[in-house]
Amino acid sequence: MSRMKWYECSGDQPDMVVSSRIRLARNLVDLPFHDRMKDEDAKALNERVLQALEGLQLGDNKLHTLKMEQLSPVQRQSLAERHSISPEFATNPNGRMLLLSEDESIAIMVNEEDHLRIQVLLSGLQLTKAYELCSRIDDVLDETLHYAFDETLGYLTSCPTNLGTGMRASVMMHLPALEQSGVISQLSNTISKLGLTIRGTYGEGSNVIGSLYQISNQITLGITEQDSIQNLQGVVRQIMESEQKAREALLKNHAPLEDQIFRSFGILKYARSLSSQEFFEHFSNVRLGASMKLLPVPFETLNGLMEQVGAATVCLSQPEVLPPQARDRKRAEIVREALERIEA
Amino acid sequence: MSRMKWYECSGDQPDMVVSSRIRLARNLVDLPFHDRMKDEDAKALNERVLQALEGLQLGDNKLHTLKMEQLSPVQRQSLAERHSISPEFATNPNGRMLLLSEDESIAIMVNEEDHLRIQVLLSGLQLTKAYELCSRIDDVLDETLHYAFDETLGYLTSCPTNLGTGMRASVMMHLPALEQSGVISQLSNTISKLGLTIRGTYGEGSNVIGSLYQISNQITLGITEQDSIQNLQGVVRQIMESEQKAREALLKNHAPLEDQIFRSFGILKYARSLSSQEFFEHFSNVRLGASMKLLPVPFETLNGLMEQVGAATVCLSQPEVLPPQARDRKRAEIVREALERIEA
Repeated sequence: MSRMKWYECSGDQPDMVVSSRIRLARNLVDLPFHDRMKDEDAKALNERVLQALEGLQLGDNKLHTLKMEQLSPVQRQSLAERHSISPEFATNPNGRMLLLSEDESIAIMVNEEDHLRIQVLLSGLQLTKAYELCSRIDDVLDETLHYAFDETLGYLTSCPTNLGTGMRASVMMHLPALEQSGVISQLSNTISKLGLTIRGTYGEGSNVIGSLYQISNQITLGITEQDSIQNLQGVVRQIMESEQKAREALLKNHAPLEDQIFRSFGILKYARSLSSQEFFEHFSNVRLGASMKLLPVPFETLNGLMEQVGAATVCLSQPEVLPPQARDRKRAEIVREALERIEA
Repeated sequence: MSRMKWYECSGDQPDMVVSSRIRLARNLVDLPFHDRMKDEDAKALNERVLQALEGLQLGDNKLHTLKMEQLSPVQRQSLAERHSISPEFATNPNGRMLLLSEDESIAIMVNEEDHLRIQVLLSGLQLTKAYELCSRIDDVLDETLHYAFDETLGYLTSCPTNLGTGMRASVMMHLPALEQSGVISQLSNTISKLGLTIRGTYGEGSNVIGSLYQISNQITLGITEQDSIQNLQGVVRQIMESEQKAREALLKNHAPLEDQIFRSFGILKYARSLSSQEFFEHFSNVRLGASMKLLPVPFETLNGLMEQVGAATVCLSQPEVLPPQARDRKRAEIVREALERIEA
């Protein structure tokens, strides 16, 4: 039996927080940075990382080694859709390696923009736990790899925006009520003053789908990891309070909302074809319905669905990405199966 | 236990024919026609009809006597929605009486535009059976009432369009594929040349909803009842063949249609609010899905729903017709209950 994936487990505040992510950018002092690396440098880095990781104890959540050029384009794109790798890592596979834990919570990209990108992704609001795990992996690697570190600046990175802690902490939130009440752009202004940023579902420049927003820290210089996480966590809790109030306001005249929620459930449960956009629209309503205890759909089921409906992920059993029509049918099939036994 | 209603029973060709109806217009020779009747004439007519009907044997399908002015406006409108009475009979109740059988298949309006309107309504394609039952009632009444009858013209009626047989035979058909292929107006031209007419769901001048069409005879003069029914039946069978071919053509690229059908099922099964128009739109898709054996919804359930979702009928438990929003919620509730135990 395979271990449960991170998104199949429950975390704190699942009604508003989908997932928490910590990502550390690290570079080795004795290898050229990414832009100037030669093929043999990349190869050497992969080998040194594998050796260094031998010291890491993860119990039964073992790490799998994936050579990116040995994966099909569909498999690579699917990993990006499930947030295990960056889109850029998927499109340029040469010399690159991914270490992915059995439960997919730990992903270490080797030869990304930085030599190492160590990521931990957990369900719900679990920033501290994600940071602790990330740190532990980081410490093990640091024992043998010798990071590029400056006493004043901190960790040195390829891109200056990561300099310092090299840490990006982010939380994926579901904010349908704030979205409907039209205050997201105002919220965006406020939190940017606090050194944070709010973005669409699939990161920078992506559209918002399913009322899903990523809140992350922007500042990595002159701040400790702990303060950065505290700061983010505090803002997330404030946004949760606002969302809660906005949901209560929506509920005052809840008949149309209730109708919308149940229709979306009916459509997800029975449709034979679902575009990604349409899936997320109904998904958002159903997720809100689950929060309001109108629908008995577990958050784990919903979070799991999100990770299964990407254009490449629905085609994983195929040699290549199917045309949109066939993809939409596959997506509907996956969604139907997940909701089959749930009666409302 | 109350007897099953006519629409809860199955008839022939239920996939395309919802119901068959025969209606006879009759007037008494020794009473003034409707326009010139006084209150006491109407009263006398009601009494004479009740006496005459004592000779009618209907087994356990007994006739209930409903004095129209004793019913609430909601009850009267509901009877019109369920096709037991004409809309005009509902809005002007004074002195009028309805005899309605336990299963609602037999409805005798007394003091309508004609002294008597004898109607039999059966599920599916059952014109001959409906005519036989109508005739039997007509014969019993004729024994004591003395109809206005002219050897050359036939039965005399208030409106000359009914002169002769006084019979209107009609069949309610579900024609989604012919509607989608845009040939209904062409069909309308053809059948008008055959002395028939095609109309919307609720009779003359009404809009078409749910792809439901009424096909009826127009000619009552110079033709026997049997020939008129044969003629209508022949045309109905031809339309069924065309609809069958159109459905097969639709099925050739059936993925979008299948998706539409299942979504409509999901919406009817879960929506918390349904306008009448929206109900019929999804109803039509689900009915087509049942015909195509994609959905395990019995035609009896669908036919029953049609009779339960009228604006007044959904409010039958209330003293008056509710405002649209509350009505739409009641309608959705009725539909949900009917489909609750059906899994697709």
